[in-house]
Amino acid sequence: MSLVRQLLAVELKSMQNSIAKAAIMTTESTHTLAVAHQAFTHFEQGLATGNWQAFFDMLTDDFSFWFPIGQFHGLNVGKERAIAFFHYVSEVYSDGITLTLDRVTSNETTVVFEFRDQGLMWGNPYKNRVAVSFDVRGDQVCGYREYLGSDGKSN
Amino acid sequence: MSLVRQLLAVELKSMQNSIAKAAIMTTESTHTLAVAHQAFTHFEQGLATGNWQAFFDMLTDDFSFWFPIGQFHGLNVGKERAIAFFHYVSEVYSDGITLTLDRVTSNETTVVFEFRDQGLMWGNPYKNRVAVSFDVRGDQVCGYREYLGSDGKSN
Repeated sequence: MSLVRQLLAVELKSMQNSIAKAAIMTTESTHTLAVAHQAFTHFEQGLATGNWQAFFDMLTDDFSFWFPIGQFHGLNVGKERAIAFFHYVSEVYSDGITLTLDRVTSNETTVVFEFRDQGLMWGNPYKNRVAVSFDVRGDQVCGYREYLGSDGKSN
Repeated sequence: MSLVRQLLAVELKSMQNSIAKAAIMTTESTHTLAVAHQAFTHFEQGLATGNWQAFFDMLTDDFSFWFPIGQFHGLNVGKERAIAFFHYVSEVYSDGITLTLDRVTSNETTVVFEFRDQGLMWGNPYKNRVAVSFDVRGDQVCGYREYLGSDGKSN
């Protein structure tokens, strides 16, 4: 094999490795994003209708979440705790709450959804801005952090 | 040119286009992430020291930000307003506040930083969780949204 061919072979091998690595990273990120989007669709449905089953089905048994305020403030560990929380949410917003999704950012394991929400809280007009951060493991969501961007009255 | 060669040429051209597109997207995302990281470093320095100049230098003149609470609650438009805000922040946390960065997510235009912070607020112990979302345009930050993940007492 000529020197030129050898150099070309080395160069091609290097390109193949780069493309393979990029493909694996892209595949992981794409999968994470797809799982989180599916979970977010169920989350949105839960907030609108009070039917949380499809969302619960996507949570790992060791699911944990951090909530900023109120009786669920701080770290909450385990799927049972999450079920109690989301049922409580649907008591607070008993007529359902609707979301307007503004932005989605992600990496290989985490996806952040920035949205505005509106509805009634205990029967009174409610508006807020929210960022929720979902951690994905396999085909499920294993963690969740919620952040509030407004005051419950404007968004 | 034989049929096989023609088919190979078409296939190679298609691969080149895919790689070029992926490269452009990756380059945009990488650039956005690099600009936001730089801005975040200056943001962190501002919070720690009260010296905000390097951060201000990275903001566009039409920079706007949304803050969740207090006298800057809601949408604030223009760099002058941002300068007033960050100087106010350094009055509130006059001994400086330190950050622990937990996660970074991004897309082609936006980067979200999830962090915990701690320090003194008006001289009293302060802890919180925060998500900040930076919008990047060119080599600058043109927008910013802040979301609070805790109560100012724990993180």
